[in-house]
Amino acid sequence: MNKTRILITNDDGIYAPGIKALWSAMSDLGDVTVVAPNREQSAVGHAITISDPLRVDEIKRSNGFKGFSVDGTPSDCVKIATQALLTDKPDIIVSGINHGSNTGMNIIYSGTVSAATEGTMLNIPSVAISLNSFDESNFDGAKAAAKAVVAHVLEKGLPEKTFLNVNVPAIPEDEIKGFKITQQGNAAFKDRFEKREDPRGKVYYWMTGHMIDPDTETHMDHYAVLDGYISITPIHYRLTNHEFLDELSSWDFT
Amino acid sequence: MNKTRILITNDDGIYAPGIKALWSAMSDLGDVTVVAPNREQSAVGHAITISDPLRVDEIKRSNGFKGFSVDGTPSDCVKIATQALLTDKPDIIVSGINHGSNTGMNIIYSGTVSAATEGTMLNIPSVAISLNSFDESNFDGAKAAAKAVVAHVLEKGLPEKTFLNVNVPAIPEDEIKGFKITQQGNAAFKDRFEKREDPRGKVYYWMTGHMIDPDTETHMDHYAVLDGYISITPIHYRLTNHEFLDELSSWDFT
Repeated sequence: MNKTRILITNDDGIYAPGIKALWSAMSDLGDVTVVAPNREQSAVGHAITISDPLRVDEIKRSNGFKGFSVDGTPSDCVKIATQALLTDKPDIIVSGINHGSNTGMNIIYSGTVSAATEGTMLNIPSVAISLNSFDESNFDGAKAAAKAVVAHVLEKGLPEKTFLNVNVPAIPEDEIKGFKITQQGNAAFKDRFEKREDPRGKVYYWMTGHMIDPDTETHMDHYAVLDGYISITPIHYRLTNHEFLDELSSWDFT
Repeated sequence: MNKTRILITNDDGIYAPGIKALWSAMSDLGDVTVVAPNREQSAVGHAITISDPLRVDEIKRSNGFKGFSVDGTPSDCVKIATQALLTDKPDIIVSGINHGSNTGMNIIYSGTVSAATEGTMLNIPSVAISLNSFDESNFDGAKAAAKAVVAHVLEKGLPEKTFLNVNVPAIPEDEIKGFKITQQGNAAFKDRFEKREDPRGKVYYWMTGHMIDPDTETHMDHYAVLDGYISITPIHYRLTNHEFLDELSSWDFT
């Protein structure tokens, strides 16, 4: 019997601790191929590279970790992996383990989530997994969560154009309350621009800000994570607002 | 009475013909502020700039066109315009006129569409407008469409978290069949990677491909445009697949 083919990628880059943790967890479930950006690509959203060529290099890290680095975005990695580097279509694509949660409105900025979107558009079951912390110390809870979710997706499949967005609280594994099926919530960054002057007196701006979460129930993604649950949200990319079609049809544009 | 405040941006850059056509059309409806990328930013999706500062420059072109150029993405432009450059919140954000249609699955790669998404997330009514051609010669149909749609949105408003994605056929204005309210269709790029060797024998890849549209009815966005209609699709960013929540809740992850 052929072993399960697992493609992994991320947006923190191939040298990030999170992708190594994911590689270690996924190696228990099948044959893992790593194709990831050669440097951090956070907040690239669903960018793809069309005006430049892509370079691919073979990378080795400790403990047998090896993979392909690409000088592009997470979406580029999924495209080039499935359409140029791999001989066989992967059975599943897993993106992560991201440093920092991807919840609420922020998922549209996330390179990690966009890799799962790209996989979904290629009709490959996909999972994005993020840890709600920028601390690199402990991926145990996220590794266990990734294994449980991926095993279930491999067994049961996913509906058309739908992937799972998984967010794990950064607390000791035995304090995690369990899995919670959630909806994309309303957590969002409230941006602010800091205006500065460079040494030559020219103005520049830094984008900064903080997370705001108006949600107060555990069936919303970010709140569930803060409450100690592993949040699993089914995300799709059917973007038509069907409820508005009738009213919009009554507008007389002529 | 205060004049209507209109913010315009695009992803082809502040020097593109399309944004000048849009500026000209919108100037008939109110006070226009232009804040756009300083160079082409196609296919950047919803990328934002978090690791670099942003520079803003004042730009003048012919016929009185002036605006702010930003060394960032379309989403950056909307953020910095509304949160640093403008004194008053705009009444509407219009993104375009894009060279090339933004329909089907491809809208998630589009910088032009992402600017409208960003405006929507900031609770500002937003419209994205694209012309189904890379030819720069004739924006008349798209200008008229932009004026009609924007006037209606200003009068009637839009539902929460929803914007309008407008695509205009590149045919003479008097041959356009009219407006058609559509759904996001299934048109998508079928990618292919072309493998080449550089003069030093190192391999690189170009992403290429062609559009595939399985749709055959005019209530789908891309097909409507090909059939001679101006397509108007209400797009939202509520990404939860609600239909799958119950079944997913029955999976036993423990």
